[in-house]
Amino acid sequence: MKAIRYYGKEDVRLEDIPEPELQPGTVKISLAYNGICGSDLHLYFDGVMPPAPSTDEPHPLSGETLPVVFGHEFSGVVDEVGAGVTKVKAGDRVAVEPFMVCGECPACKKGMYNLCEKMGFIGISGRGGGLAEKIVVEERWVHNVGDIPLDQAALIEPLSVGHHAVAHAGAAFGKAAGKVAVVGGAGPIGLLTAAVLKAYGVKTIVSEPSEIRRAKLTEVGVADLIVNPAEEDLLEKVKEFTDGVLADFAFDCAGIAAVADQLLSVLTTGGHLEVVALHVHPFELDLMGAIMMPERSISACIGYCDDHEPAIKLVQEGKVNLEPLITSKITADRIVEDGYQRLRGNPGEVKILVSMK
Amino acid sequence: MKAIRYYGKEDVRLEDIPEPELQPGTVKISLAYNGICGSDLHLYFDGVMPPAPSTDEPHPLSGETLPVVFGHEFSGVVDEVGAGVTKVKAGDRVAVEPFMVCGECPACKKGMYNLCEKMGFIGISGRGGGLAEKIVVEERWVHNVGDIPLDQAALIEPLSVGHHAVAHAGAAFGKAAGKVAVVGGAGPIGLLTAAVLKAYGVKTIVSEPSEIRRAKLTEVGVADLIVNPAEEDLLEKVKEFTDGVLADFAFDCAGIAAVADQLLSVLTTGGHLEVVALHVHPFELDLMGAIMMPERSISACIGYCDDHEPAIKLVQEGKVNLEPLITSKITADRIVEDGYQRLRGNPGEVKILVSMK
Repeated sequence: MKAIRYYGKEDVRLEDIPEPELQPGTVKISLAYNGICGSDLHLYFDGVMPPAPSTDEPHPLSGETLPVVFGHEFSGVVDEVGAGVTKVKAGDRVAVEPFMVCGECPACKKGMYNLCEKMGFIGISGRGGGLAEKIVVEERWVHNVGDIPLDQAALIEPLSVGHHAVAHAGAAFGKAAGKVAVVGGAGPIGLLTAAVLKAYGVKTIVSEPSEIRRAKLTEVGVADLIVNPAEEDLLEKVKEFTDGVLADFAFDCAGIAAVADQLLSVLTTGGHLEVVALHVHPFELDLMGAIMMPERSISACIGYCDDHEPAIKLVQEGKVNLEPLITSKITADRIVEDGYQRLRGNPGEVKILVSMK
Repeated sequence: MKAIRYYGKEDVRLEDIPEPELQPGTVKISLAYNGICGSDLHLYFDGVMPPAPSTDEPHPLSGETLPVVFGHEFSGVVDEVGAGVTKVKAGDRVAVEPFMVCGECPACKKGMYNLCEKMGFIGISGRGGGLAEKIVVEERWVHNVGDIPLDQAALIEPLSVGHHAVAHAGAAFGKAAGKVAVVGGAGPIGLLTAAVLKAYGVKTIVSEPSEIRRAKLTEVGVADLIVNPAEEDLLEKVKEFTDGVLADFAFDCAGIAAVADQLLSVLTTGGHLEVVALHVHPFELDLMGAIMMPERSISACIGYCDDHEPAIKLVQEGKVNLEPLITSKITADRIVEDGYQRLRGNPGEVKILVSMK
């Protein structure tokens, strides 16, 4: 079958490789679409990083070294199921939660499998990936998407990241309906976090300096208020919106210290900041003024954990519309030029979907 | 009546002042004991700081300027009650929650009255204090301590600080029974936080470099494990204690960046750090490594809010023993020498109680 394999920095190749074989407890899927993720860009432009293996150091769970089939945001249709599989059947449309976990470490035992000590990703660490014609996946990680179109189904994975952030902050499942959240940054994860907040009835303000991203926000309709922090005073806008009370939640989807500081400043007493974007530098936190005196809290989260099913439900119920987030569809032979390069230089692109033909 | 009034830095005076008058809705109390708090030391040695008024700027709620009656950790016996008071009656032993709040700001409206925008303290901001023969207090702030001895009842206020920290972290009321907490620092608040944790069934490790404080910890019996972080590897000790899982909660009762860093390092995935001690310097937080990858959270809290009643209950039920925390009893005429000066230079002192005669 055709597949795109990742060999290392700026080296992906469209190749013919053997089809994976169905095993008991697994599901064979004919792949439809694979979305390009920010971590794919890091891998492509910056080179190998965990949880990718190297050419001589295999991933502890997959046992594979480079090259690996690339792509972890994907959808498809079930071809056939192995012995004992009951969750899906041939013909079902599915999205895949692309994890591999050990099941034995303290995090796995607590059910926090996204924090598994040996954690790997299908499409980064081995066991195939979304940029291929077929994949075989353990039943546990396959989620039936019902009648969600296959292109939108490829966005269930990043939507689950947004869902996890909202759930980790304690704002999902209606627990924060009517409360106010501020999202800093409207890249793909900021947009999807805002979409989940709105779906759960949270009043959502999004702060985003890029004009083209603000235009996309308006089109997608996930924000109750859109602020341009380069020209408007975010604190004043949040004060107006909340009659002086300020926001209950903030989500840092930018990964920039100045944004995190600003988000802390718009939180009410007892408010919570959830950090969703990576901060590669240490963050200078005013523990006394920004956390203690107003009794605020900060947490951060990564990936998803039991979020695919509720994320699928939000789309099925029409509470999240993924369609406008798909900004381009390309074929695998053009992935570098029309995928990685275009995505890196163009803030108007949200999700580029890749199909094998 | 006799009272100790605070005039400013290194200036407290034992004076004769008029007795306060009972009003409708208030309670007149004959005072028994007043504990010396760390913030009293700051006020005495370093001078005026919020929420104390100055000589020309009155506190917004009390309307008073310096001097003010000093002392906010106190107990007494009800003399008489004003019209409409039903919570206590003459002869009841009581502790006082020494707040004054506006009732109108967003925090007050949310019930987070400890974060009131105008918040003041009886004994710092005016309206009398514990270092006097009598005080008149609004019924709301008076708590019946039942048969708790009056000396121990003066410790209900700092115990409520510990209770608030445990409750704010989500570890009170049995919610974290069987889980593991590490307390960094065994000053008075660290000791009381550990006492509350143990009372709620949390397995408690206390890290404290001072030998005399570790001896007091052993005597008080509030720690399941005591670690000397200057000579022992706290992380290894926590690993041993938890079979490699690490701690669910940590409480920073030291206010030192290195302690907060160490406490983060002993938290399990999903663990929570509650900052109880003041950090006067910004804290350099490794958001990615210490918070995001292990999905930990940090919050901080100040004072107490609806904590006096459950704190009293823990003492009444015999789950917290305050008696060994009272290390000295002195009279008001010796408060500088035997109170402030001794407390500052002597880590073996936990709580010094002052009576007027």
